[in-house]
Amino acid sequence: MKQIHAFIEERRLDEAREALLELHPREQGELYLSLNEGERLFLYEILSPSELGDIFEHLSDNEREDFLDELDETYSAMMLNEMNADDAADILQLVDEAKAERIFAKMQQDGATELRQLMNYEEETAGSIMTTEFVVLKSTERVSDVMTHLRDEAPNAETIYYLYVVDEVGKLAGVISLRDLIVADPSEFIEDKLNKKVVSVDVSLDQEEVARIIKKYDFLAVPVVTNDNHLVGIITVDDILDVVDEETEEDFGEISGARGSMNTKLSSFEAARARAPWIIMLMLFGLITANVIGFFEETLETIVLLAAFIPMIMGSAGNTGTQALAVVVRGLAVGTIDRSRFFYIIKKEFGTGALLGITCALTMLIIIPIFYDSFIIAAIVGTSLFLTLCMATVIGATIPIIINKFNIDPAVASGPFITTINDVIGLLIYFSIATSMLQYL
Amino acid sequence: MKQIHAFIEERRLDEAREALLELHPREQGELYLSLNEGERLFLYEILSPSELGDIFEHLSDNEREDFLDELDETYSAMMLNEMNADDAADILQLVDEAKAERIFAKMQQDGATELRQLMNYEEETAGSIMTTEFVVLKSTERVSDVMTHLRDEAPNAETIYYLYVVDEVGKLAGVISLRDLIVADPSEFIEDKLNKKVVSVDVSLDQEEVARIIKKYDFLAVPVVTNDNHLVGIITVDDILDVVDEETEEDFGEISGARGSMNTKLSSFEAARARAPWIIMLMLFGLITANVIGFFEETLETIVLLAAFIPMIMGSAGNTGTQALAVVVRGLAVGTIDRSRFFYIIKKEFGTGALLGITCALTMLIIIPIFYDSFIIAAIVGTSLFLTLCMATVIGATIPIIINKFNIDPAVASGPFITTINDVIGLLIYFSIATSMLQYL
Repeated sequence: MKQIHAFIEERRLDEAREALLELHPREQGELYLSLNEGERLFLYEILSPSELGDIFEHLSDNEREDFLDELDETYSAMMLNEMNADDAADILQLVDEAKAERIFAKMQQDGATELRQLMNYEEETAGSIMTTEFVVLKSTERVSDVMTHLRDEAPNAETIYYLYVVDEVGKLAGVISLRDLIVADPSEFIEDKLNKKVVSVDVSLDQEEVARIIKKYDFLAVPVVTNDNHLVGIITVDDILDVVDEETEEDFGEISGARGSMNTKLSSFEAARARAPWIIMLMLFGLITANVIGFFEETLETIVLLAAFIPMIMGSAGNTGTQALAVVVRGLAVGTIDRSRFFYIIKKEFGTGALLGITCALTMLIIIPIFYDSFIIAAIVGTSLFLTLCMATVIGATIPIIINKFNIDPAVASGPFITTINDVIGLLIYFSIATSMLQYL
Repeated sequence: MKQIHAFIEERRLDEAREALLELHPREQGELYLSLNEGERLFLYEILSPSELGDIFEHLSDNEREDFLDELDETYSAMMLNEMNADDAADILQLVDEAKAERIFAKMQQDGATELRQLMNYEEETAGSIMTTEFVVLKSTERVSDVMTHLRDEAPNAETIYYLYVVDEVGKLAGVISLRDLIVADPSEFIEDKLNKKVVSVDVSLDQEEVARIIKKYDFLAVPVVTNDNHLVGIITVDDILDVVDEETEEDFGEISGARGSMNTKLSSFEAARARAPWIIMLMLFGLITANVIGFFEETLETIVLLAAFIPMIMGSAGNTGTQALAVVVRGLAVGTIDRSRFFYIIKKEFGTGALLGITCALTMLIIIPIFYDSFIIAAIVGTSLFLTLCMATVIGATIPIIINKFNIDPAVASGPFITTINDVIGLLIYFSIATSMLQYL
């Protein structure tokens, strides 16, 4: 790598080019990312659009973003012509519409049409992540014929390990793996070796569901069809690995209220701007809690010690709620929680909360009298803990399920939000009980 | 599915068998999981060990666990003989040692030896997830010869899409994809088509790192070698999808303090038992917070209103800390945060915390005087918020990085734990400032 850097710095064209192309495209990409602008401009001169396309195919969207404006539009068009359609579409999504139109005009006609179609599919659906470069067979071909024309198609197809068979009108009729083809007798007909029970996904299916299907069947690729079963694309497993990362990041943002600031490349200022709305909103929510406590000021004045247990009540409510939330968000993501079993999950989390509540209450009933010499305060804290924990698990589990069911903005299911709700409920319970027992204190 | 259930209930052997085997093994697995014990015993009678093995290959470890004891040991041994070595090893890990030994004794000699070796690799390493069924070529073969003997090997190999080439002593010399083979001239030698810059992983490499490599290069499989470069196995992308799920679950447990209770099949009691240690420990920690507040009882008695802002200080500290934690845990998992850049990350999070702190402080300096008619309390709350938020982001980011660097028990990096630390610090700051400003109140 160091040597290539030196070659580029010294503008030694042939040596730089040769050394670079010896690397795996992903490693070329890492080198590319480490260059400064002047060096990158030099690279565009020594690499063909197709070679740069190989590099771009192995970059993530975040990595691609910064460099598109450096590329000449004709060069961009030539590069996109040569790339896998799904990656090319992803890249074009990153530039503004006017520029995309100018690039389209410079591209090969059918490539541009294909890309336009791909870019029309809604984000996070099967259509938006599929590629249109796949091998299609006819069921009347012989195995030996297929092996011959596969040679011509192999270099351009995203995968040749699954071959899809369509009928006369383009409807998906079956699939055959290259493994089955190799084992088959060359004189056999595709018709007879075909697996007709092919699992396919609808072009509008959510990408998370596509990932679930690929994982479930251990597929290397899955065909994408329209609602009348026309084959329009395929999704390969390497794209699914990216989808899984993307979805996990969303879930992480959800649990922690850090949505929008998960990208580690953000500056302090950008990160603060992304996180601030949450923090400020929850702080203003904290004012509600302040009012709740203010409302019980008289109780608190009578026995100031009550304030000491505020953090414990709040903390326990927050922690149990977050645990329940994490289990449910993750279960929904991997499909082990079925949202139709809503009441079953709620019942179970209530049970868990009750058991945790009893345990915590008993612990405090023993400990508080020892340290604070007051059975009444122990009873107040214990009862509050029990009731609060029962509520907290149920709220932690309910909110993400409701969100998932009604497609409300999932930010509402974030950990901090649920914690804040649980805080308010916990403190209301605590001070209500304390106030009603004030006469015994 | 319903029909097969009916066939099984009515013990109609041939029909049940035929209808079942028409399904994809994963769907057979789902049907299998829906049966009761009597029906499963019937299934073992009508399916050959190899057919049941196909089903078990598509079950997850959680799903497999319950049924092993129902299988006759001879039948188990025959089934394991027929299965992929990595899945067979995973299954044998689930039974006790004595039983595993009895099954080994009934297996084919070399299969058993291979399994024993696989089971010796440490958990969560490349060795523990690799399979030993791969196709090995010699560089002196011709393409046409390979295509011929591939036919015999295809049915037993985990993948035939990447073919590995070893030298005379078994050291990894290169890789060639089936795609390249198909495009190549049949008379060419493997030697000339071989990719010698093959990316391999060490048998002891952590599975998370293996996943990172497969994702980075978009591989379908990666070869596993010993430290002297002997090829001992391969890891395929479908296993990596499982690894990614497993690791994400660990990270989720870490952020939420729900480690060990992420499995949604646990009963309320099991879930409560798994979560209770955390909740109780953190509640006892809450006693420390109670003591902190108790220590400032005099301040609090002078001005009871201070108690009202305890939840806001705590909540804001907890929320900002959790955000920083989520970003860092995720960044470490996907490799975008490099632990060598420790100080850079800390500096950035400190900056983010300071910006959030200023914003929150200013908001409170405006709002509190309006609602509570006290500039002094506004100043106390504002200053405390600013200092607390600076600390909270740094603590949220520092602890997971330290953990990752020194391999301490990662449970210490859990969200609730960090939140509790931030609570204590936040309240100490708040009451210290309040006490020192008491004279102006």
